[in-house]
Amino acid sequence: MKVANLVGQTFKEKPSDCVIDSHALMVRGGFMKYVGNGIYSEFPALRRVTAKIENIIRKEMDAIDGQEVLFPVVLPASLWEESGRFESVGSELVRFKDRNGSKHVLGMTHEEAAVQLVREYAQSYARYPFMIYQIQRKFRDEARPRAGMIRVREFTMKDAYSFHTSQEDLDKYYELCFQAYNRIFQRAGVPEVVTVKSDSGMMGGSVSHEYMLLTPVGEDSVVMCNECDYRSNMEAAGNRVDNTWDGNISEELECVETPGCKTIDDVCAFLKSDVKASCKAVVYQKNIDDKFVVAFVRGDYEVNETKLRNLVGGEIHTAEITADDCLVAGYIGPYGISDEAEVYIDVSLKGIKSIVAGANKEGYHYTGLDLERDLESVQYVDISKVKEGGICPCCGKPAITVKRGIEVGNIFQLGTKYTKSMNMQYTDENGESHYPVMGCYGIGVGRLAASVCEVHHDEYGPVWPITIAPWEVQICCLRADNEETKKVADQLYKDLMDSGIEVIYDDRQIRPGAMFSDADLTGVPIRVTVSPRNLKESSVEITTRDKSVKDIVPIEEAAGYIQNLRLKLFADIESHVEDYK
Amino acid sequence: MKVANLVGQTFKEKPSDCVIDSHALMVRGGFMKYVGNGIYSEFPALRRVTAKIENIIRKEMDAIDGQEVLFPVVLPASLWEESGRFESVGSELVRFKDRNGSKHVLGMTHEEAAVQLVREYAQSYARYPFMIYQIQRKFRDEARPRAGMIRVREFTMKDAYSFHTSQEDLDKYYELCFQAYNRIFQRAGVPEVVTVKSDSGMMGGSVSHEYMLLTPVGEDSVVMCNECDYRSNMEAAGNRVDNTWDGNISEELECVETPGCKTIDDVCAFLKSDVKASCKAVVYQKNIDDKFVVAFVRGDYEVNETKLRNLVGGEIHTAEITADDCLVAGYIGPYGISDEAEVYIDVSLKGIKSIVAGANKEGYHYTGLDLERDLESVQYVDISKVKEGGICPCCGKPAITVKRGIEVGNIFQLGTKYTKSMNMQYTDENGESHYPVMGCYGIGVGRLAASVCEVHHDEYGPVWPITIAPWEVQICCLRADNEETKKVADQLYKDLMDSGIEVIYDDRQIRPGAMFSDADLTGVPIRVTVSPRNLKESSVEITTRDKSVKDIVPIEEAAGYIQNLRLKLFADIESHVEDYK
Repeated sequence: MKVANLVGQTFKEKPSDCVIDSHALMVRGGFMKYVGNGIYSEFPALRRVTAKIENIIRKEMDAIDGQEVLFPVVLPASLWEESGRFESVGSELVRFKDRNGSKHVLGMTHEEAAVQLVREYAQSYARYPFMIYQIQRKFRDEARPRAGMIRVREFTMKDAYSFHTSQEDLDKYYELCFQAYNRIFQRAGVPEVVTVKSDSGMMGGSVSHEYMLLTPVGEDSVVMCNECDYRSNMEAAGNRVDNTWDGNISEELECVETPGCKTIDDVCAFLKSDVKASCKAVVYQKNIDDKFVVAFVRGDYEVNETKLRNLVGGEIHTAEITADDCLVAGYIGPYGISDEAEVYIDVSLKGIKSIVAGANKEGYHYTGLDLERDLESVQYVDISKVKEGGICPCCGKPAITVKRGIEVGNIFQLGTKYTKSMNMQYTDENGESHYPVMGCYGIGVGRLAASVCEVHHDEYGPVWPITIAPWEVQICCLRADNEETKKVADQLYKDLMDSGIEVIYDDRQIRPGAMFSDADLTGVPIRVTVSPRNLKESSVEITTRDKSVKDIVPIEEAAGYIQNLRLKLFADIESHVEDYK
Repeated sequence: MKVANLVGQTFKEKPSDCVIDSHALMVRGGFMKYVGNGIYSEFPALRRVTAKIENIIRKEMDAIDGQEVLFPVVLPASLWEESGRFESVGSELVRFKDRNGSKHVLGMTHEEAAVQLVREYAQSYARYPFMIYQIQRKFRDEARPRAGMIRVREFTMKDAYSFHTSQEDLDKYYELCFQAYNRIFQRAGVPEVVTVKSDSGMMGGSVSHEYMLLTPVGEDSVVMCNECDYRSNMEAAGNRVDNTWDGNISEELECVETPGCKTIDDVCAFLKSDVKASCKAVVYQKNIDDKFVVAFVRGDYEVNETKLRNLVGGEIHTAEITADDCLVAGYIGPYGISDEAEVYIDVSLKGIKSIVAGANKEGYHYTGLDLERDLESVQYVDISKVKEGGICPCCGKPAITVKRGIEVGNIFQLGTKYTKSMNMQYTDENGESHYPVMGCYGIGVGRLAASVCEVHHDEYGPVWPITIAPWEVQICCLRADNEETKKVADQLYKDLMDSGIEVIYDDRQIRPGAMFSDADLTGVPIRVTVSPRNLKESSVEITTRDKSVKDIVPIEEAAGYIQNLRLKLFADIESHVEDYK
């Protein structure tokens, strides 16, 4: 391919609407084009990247006995009604009626379609286990698409579904898939991806993991321990709080006036009390009946809404409290709170002998509150977010650190959520019927491409790993108007193409600076510069995009040198790929 | 892959809802599964077929300098509003609003998206020509999905768009693409695909061709000449009618009573007149204003609505005539018809000296009508369907034959329809602005798979050409419980896999009859049967699915024999692939 013919244009300036580097560089490099909110077209350069990622995924899925299928993008609503998700999923699910008024949805995940495909096939235990996967477009009507291809509304996804006759068998396969995922990210040139335990959210099931590529621009919080292997996403991270400190001693319960103190900071300042010994109330309402849900956490902690939602067992939203309600906004506390509210007390409050908390009375707080002494009964639950320096729930050391990451893949154990609701059963050896257990496994192709660019770029452009680079070698012919230079470059292009190497060849008659800028924006790993100056020495210059190699090589050795360098770059990546255990 | 592990089930019985063979066999063979009206999932066996078709297409598109891109499935309505198609296309275009109330459509073709992608890129003549293509899902809300994968609502399509600075350049590329398409169908094992001129319909533009696979179950009519190369689809076929016959002589114009004769057959029977000398009126109304459009054709011809619509220049529908209207239903004729109606007189009426036609008066017809003598002026237009035995518009011989075919691909010259409406311009060498001309080129992947199955099957299953077969070789191990048999079959499976051959291996312990039935339904071209009986002679049986080969081969020669047979089958197909001219 010649640069002169490549469809896609490069830009010098960073587009004003690009917040993160990968987005800016992928627009500037002619990889992607905005079509609508969270909707992009892929130019040829990016299509080559995503095709390579798809093939890496395909190979690893096939290696663990996955069978590729294809589900429709458009699904009859009836399928989602069977699972109950037609009602339960919010407006990220696009629903529409066809010309006959039949309800349909755009598939944003395909558990229902997977069960529907194999429900009749897998009626005997002898068919199990098996895994099917597809690589297909999906649409999820995100409220806030952002960061280019990182969070879009339409995307290509590999989604896989495995079916098993026992939890043990699922566990075994889940572990295999866990390794396959590591290999996929290692092959794609990002061995630094970490796995974290995660909350299963709307997918159902219990065990699940996310694959996180750590980067400050990531939109997810990853909780890690500096002392042990513990890793979790914020939603699923268990919080442990140590409330032993000097001065944590019992005092008498007293109701004091705290005029105009509506926030916990106001109160602590007014009472000259330590925020650690205070109790903060965060109030929600259940979506289903607007009943109040009050979460009490230590004054310096935040509520983890995912954990709270799981306890409540349904959707909740931030409360609006009026004067007529049973709660006194700004003065809510656990002692003497109305029976009408559902109350949750966080583990961060456990063991504090003398707490400042709202008195459920306008303008008043309690001091000296001891929950275990003063409440009839108290049950602590974990509904708070962990903090930097917090205690690791695994090793118990105060070594928790919180980082940002992009979720590039996830794997879930689904249990029987879908097989039960959609009545998929198999008969075992004794003729008895059971619901199979499922796992599901997703990777967003475009997001992975963008994430690799995010962690592998410099100020001039992407630095693509050779396994997913749009081309392997770029030839820059400086002064293509010079007959000799052009001849050498043309011949090298032909030789490399003939040996099966993917080459992009720039023989445009433009300034060297512009040519190099464009090459940087394309981000091809190996670059050969053919110029009159080097040709005086009968040589060409060979460099790598990551600047680790910069050599002057005699013309007749160039093709061989490039072939070896190419193999070395592949081998470097392969050296990070772990074998299956 | 072992049959025992293959996801997908075979059925003995023809499903009751399958009208055509390919649909029935692809359901019975575990290739596809119904999800909703016109919506199917692909089982692994079919996914392998469609992946191979996609790769054949990709290769040929790349060979004519196509660059693969990816457009979104979901498009903002604004793009389709730019081209005017948001309004002009009917309910086959799915329109929906997203969570913010923004209008979107599901892409059923991507001219708008293609122009949007390259509008800024291609502002200089130096960028031209170029072609971009994608292989992507599309949704078209067909009123009547039918025939399995032949006419569906959701489908995978390869759609390509080329851009040119002159009609000559488009013509040149169009011819190249024409050849690439022939090569694609030849490679997919259906060299019998014919090309026909077609009507461009809603795509705009003028020149277009369809690729038709002839089969009695096809839903399109293909007009061919037995004497020359003329071929056209019914919509675009020009009609020529010879009205010279003995007895075609002038008579006096006379208004006669024809009580109760409402159809042309009634009238001809009542008047004992030849239907050839009669004039039939078919009445439509314009969608835009309900104005009547009357088409007059010779009594034994039918109206070609596509040709009529093109003349009218807008959508029409069958008329509903009431007593208050200017037309007298059942008695409409060209002589004395109301000025309020728009009248078209077909070429099939030209040269008839004495016609029977409605008198525009309840219960009366004219006899002896001579249009050229009796009307003030008469202009003949071509609005009738050609008939079997009709006159070829190319060679003039009465050798027209009408066959049925499935449209497996199409190519269009679009002109500037989209570049103009979407304001895509380039600057030429003199600094002047122009609209580029476009071509577009489509192939439905699933439809091609089903069409190949339709023309290459027997009563037992598909007979896949080796280039697109799900596997190349099937091993049937009869009596897998027999240790020696199993050992030989296992070894052969391993040997063939090691040499890179795609093998499906049936080692289930089932009856030979059931195993062979399943193998027939899978339709793999080469079959090896390993059985205790043949092993007595130290041999295996090798057959082809099309029954052209049936050999007993010594075990030690089997792998080599199969490799050669495989190469021969590929070479057979390659021998039909025409070189580019």
